[in-house]
Amino acid sequence: MTKVFDKPDEFAAVALAGFCAANVDRVQPVAHGAVRAVPGADGKVAIVVGGGSGHYPAFLGYIGTGMADAAVAGDVFASPSTSWVAGVARAANRGGGVILGFGNYAGDVLNFGAAAERLRGEGIDARILAVTDDVASASKDEVAKRRGVAGDVLVFKIAGAAAEAGMDIDAVEAVAKRANANSVSFGVAFDGCTLPGQGSPLFTVDAGHVGVGLGIHGEPGIRTEKMVPAVDLAKMLFDPLIAERPAGHDGRVAVILNGLGRTKYEELFVLWHHLTGMFDAHGLTLVDPEVGEFVTSLDMAGCSLSIMWLDDELAELWQAPADAPAFRKGRVAHVAPAAEVKPVSAEPVAASIIKGSVQSQQSAVCLASILEYMAAALAEAEDELGRIDAQAGDGDHGQGMARGSAAAAAEAKRVSEAGAGAGTVLSMAGDAWADRAGGTSGALWGVALRAWGQELADTARPDAATVANGAQAAYEAVVRLGGAKPGDKTLIDSFAPFVETLKSQVAAGNDLVAAWAAAAAASTSAADATADLVPKLGRARPLAERSVGHPDAGAISLALCARVVGKQLSSG
Amino acid sequence: MTKVFDKPDEFAAVALAGFCAANVDRVQPVAHGAVRAVPGADGKVAIVVGGGSGHYPAFLGYIGTGMADAAVAGDVFASPSTSWVAGVARAANRGGGVILGFGNYAGDVLNFGAAAERLRGEGIDARILAVTDDVASASKDEVAKRRGVAGDVLVFKIAGAAAEAGMDIDAVEAVAKRANANSVSFGVAFDGCTLPGQGSPLFTVDAGHVGVGLGIHGEPGIRTEKMVPAVDLAKMLFDPLIAERPAGHDGRVAVILNGLGRTKYEELFVLWHHLTGMFDAHGLTLVDPEVGEFVTSLDMAGCSLSIMWLDDELAELWQAPADAPAFRKGRVAHVAPAAEVKPVSAEPVAASIIKGSVQSQQSAVCLASILEYMAAALAEAEDELGRIDAQAGDGDHGQGMARGSAAAAAEAKRVSEAGAGAGTVLSMAGDAWADRAGGTSGALWGVALRAWGQELADTARPDAATVANGAQAAYEAVVRLGGAKPGDKTLIDSFAPFVETLKSQVAAGNDLVAAWAAAAAASTSAADATADLVPKLGRARPLAERSVGHPDAGAISLALCARVVGKQLSSG
Repeated sequence: MTKVFDKPDEFAAVALAGFCAANVDRVQPVAHGAVRAVPGADGKVAIVVGGGSGHYPAFLGYIGTGMADAAVAGDVFASPSTSWVAGVARAANRGGGVILGFGNYAGDVLNFGAAAERLRGEGIDARILAVTDDVASASKDEVAKRRGVAGDVLVFKIAGAAAEAGMDIDAVEAVAKRANANSVSFGVAFDGCTLPGQGSPLFTVDAGHVGVGLGIHGEPGIRTEKMVPAVDLAKMLFDPLIAERPAGHDGRVAVILNGLGRTKYEELFVLWHHLTGMFDAHGLTLVDPEVGEFVTSLDMAGCSLSIMWLDDELAELWQAPADAPAFRKGRVAHVAPAAEVKPVSAEPVAASIIKGSVQSQQSAVCLASILEYMAAALAEAEDELGRIDAQAGDGDHGQGMARGSAAAAAEAKRVSEAGAGAGTVLSMAGDAWADRAGGTSGALWGVALRAWGQELADTARPDAATVANGAQAAYEAVVRLGGAKPGDKTLIDSFAPFVETLKSQVAAGNDLVAAWAAAAAASTSAADATADLVPKLGRARPLAERSVGHPDAGAISLALCARVVGKQLSSG
Repeated sequence: MTKVFDKPDEFAAVALAGFCAANVDRVQPVAHGAVRAVPGADGKVAIVVGGGSGHYPAFLGYIGTGMADAAVAGDVFASPSTSWVAGVARAANRGGGVILGFGNYAGDVLNFGAAAERLRGEGIDARILAVTDDVASASKDEVAKRRGVAGDVLVFKIAGAAAEAGMDIDAVEAVAKRANANSVSFGVAFDGCTLPGQGSPLFTVDAGHVGVGLGIHGEPGIRTEKMVPAVDLAKMLFDPLIAERPAGHDGRVAVILNGLGRTKYEELFVLWHHLTGMFDAHGLTLVDPEVGEFVTSLDMAGCSLSIMWLDDELAELWQAPADAPAFRKGRVAHVAPAAEVKPVSAEPVAASIIKGSVQSQQSAVCLASILEYMAAALAEAEDELGRIDAQAGDGDHGQGMARGSAAAAAEAKRVSEAGAGAGTVLSMAGDAWADRAGGTSGALWGVALRAWGQELADTARPDAATVANGAQAAYEAVVRLGGAKPGDKTLIDSFAPFVETLKSQVAAGNDLVAAWAAAAAASTSAADATADLVPKLGRARPLAERSVGHPDAGAISLALCARVVGKQLSSG
């Protein structure tokens, strides 16, 4: 179990500080992450990687020439927030665009995706690179659903080498995506890990057993088996990967045998001894393989095997020099000169505020006031939403909505007073919401408001059609980043009828107030169907009165917000 | 616990094979170890390091430019045998002499020391370098008794850099010894490790507690405390080291914060964050510190802090480039050319046999016959010696003596038939004994016979005085390498009176047969005093008859051998 910490919730942040202190010649701290001490060339594509902490060397240990330009560190096993990712990416940007690399987990997809949208909104060409190498997590037909594990290293190495070689962002993205498509991993676990401050493991594997295909956070595997000798374990790792050998491939492979924390080096070497025979038997040629700890999971016992099927370009990029705290390729030839380090600010890099037209400024003030009412209503509903969420989730929805909306209202006030137009105010309010609320719904509300704001623009008073287009854009952003469909019991369930109704009412010639009222009613009715309870006048029906079923707090709170905003619109 | 293995007793050997397979561009396998794939320059001092397995990166992970030329891998937590060390050192020798580096543990001191003697006997200038950094293991007044832990890395790095820079063996030895004298470490443990195939840990630490100063194999620490926050742990590691700051030192330090296996990187970074404040507060300047896993102990939970007090030369050598599988200094600049590797033989490198004079050859044949009688007697006494040893030790003494003496007799026969003189026959018989017997007593018998043989030489029939001088040399070798004093309940107890009596009898003008008989009687009588039992005519008194006390099997078997040899001498 994790033993060394002070306050458990400060573990990741203090570890980040300690990492930077231990590598002053290699990295510089920025808010929630680190960048190279000596930045890459002007115009170089920046490779920014990240995810939850607890996986070192992932991701901070990858910062260095030929690998990443920067890494973002979330809390232990938790995605960094959208603003953390965007802030680190801004600090790493060298003018050539930014590739955001991460393992394919819902929270990371959301936050790195939302960060990319924010950065693009600021004129930075940002692309996302979700690594999907874990063959145990989904079938070959659903590759996009696969989780990212130690294949991260293979894919980031390729992206890093391509960027270091001066390729443009399209070329880097293309070869990195090919690297991902060519990478497969399979893992086994012998025992779970314990988060800082927790009395018991996050998950366990029965003594004397192997969790076959178990994920690095304890995600379900394929099966549990009795422990077997090393030679059989090697086969257990190898067989699922060789099964996905591309037809006609010449057999050149980059390979990583990765220890998850408590399965130590000599155990990995024992496995490697057996694996070399299997590679041989299948006519595979090992190109610069790696055996060690590359993606850990605190003190989890287990290991994984990763293979990247190489072509000429991938082989060259895989073998290109790299020099990061916990990863290298090539040979040491000299001692680094100490004078090259150019300090960057460790403070978050914030986007600047652009002034809007007078009309748009007036709309912005109105918008800020609406957000204030919304925040007040959500504060009042906080406990009730929490109780509803606790039926199906972890009960933090009310808190997140209250915290997020309050931050959004405050940011809208600040930004509108600084002269921003409606579009900017709503976008930045969305960012503030996401950053303060945390969690999945916070990130989704953030991207929704940002997408909506981008439709409003800063030049004119938004008309009904523009508002409806904004709602549509917001909905699409939520679907794109959140990946949920109607009926999945998410806020989509009430958001979809809201947007449909708003659009059709506006198309039918109704004014915004009437159209919004109809849309809010449609969303409330849908939330009712989803939730088996009716939010009335800003309050959900008391828990005791509601019928069975798992109410979706997200759908309810969206309907609630729609009603509150409608009320404000109708009151002028 | 260690989970990945096939047959537990093959764990270390298979891990070695896997390590070499995983690092084909960096190392080449030799028997019981590995050497650099691309050897150092002709005439370079070779740095050969080693010890028990289970501590990777120690010791194989240190092989590379600027670090070690080769490493010897013993079984898990067990010293490599004398011949393993000597064999790897022969393969690594570049003509500039060999420095044998190891942590200061009894078995390693014995085997690396005996290997150095063997190598010197073959004309290779071999020196030993025992690392003694663990301040918890002995007081500052008894530095030579301190164990070696992660300070290994500091000392080997200095030795490696000095050798790479082309210094001669005296200079390398001097600066490496200064590095050792300037290095201190302190460790804490949170939980024990489990050897391959064992059902329970080698040692444990109570849950929620810290073993303060606990050794990396579970050697007793200073005290056990309740677990404390990271900031207090940092102080626990730091205080004992700063207490040994040399008077007037300018504060430049090389530092290693080392994880023992299950205490992971982010925990170490948390500690490092706190430690940096302590270094600052004491005016210490960190020179290229290292935070990570450098000397592990299977899956042991815990960590250690090591400091080397630098001077100009040590600082320069510490920062010099190094490039080993698990340790590097400097920056990667290019990809290694693949063509430089010159294969070396993986077979043990054996010493060649030099012919003796005709007289010495006759003595050699006689010696071989005496060894055969001795082996027969020890085979007969095997079970009894085992039972005696089981009273105080692990009961393998009889087996080791029988196996060792049989190997010595066979080797003496082979070498004498090849025409070697008495000196060579006895020396090589000693090597065979040590290699086959294993354990401490095997290594001691090996060095004893080798030292004795070196006195006999290969040119003339040995006279009584020469034999007595040989006995004295053998005794001194045992004391030097074994470190025991009379009364410590070791074979010294019967060896000392044997040698004293033999010398005084010869000095008094008695012939060898008479002198030897008296000496054998003295050793028997001493073994009796030690053991509370009398070995008679090749058999110890049955266990049931002996009085209380822990009999020393080693003293008894030496007395037994003395009597058997005496009998042979007197029978002509």
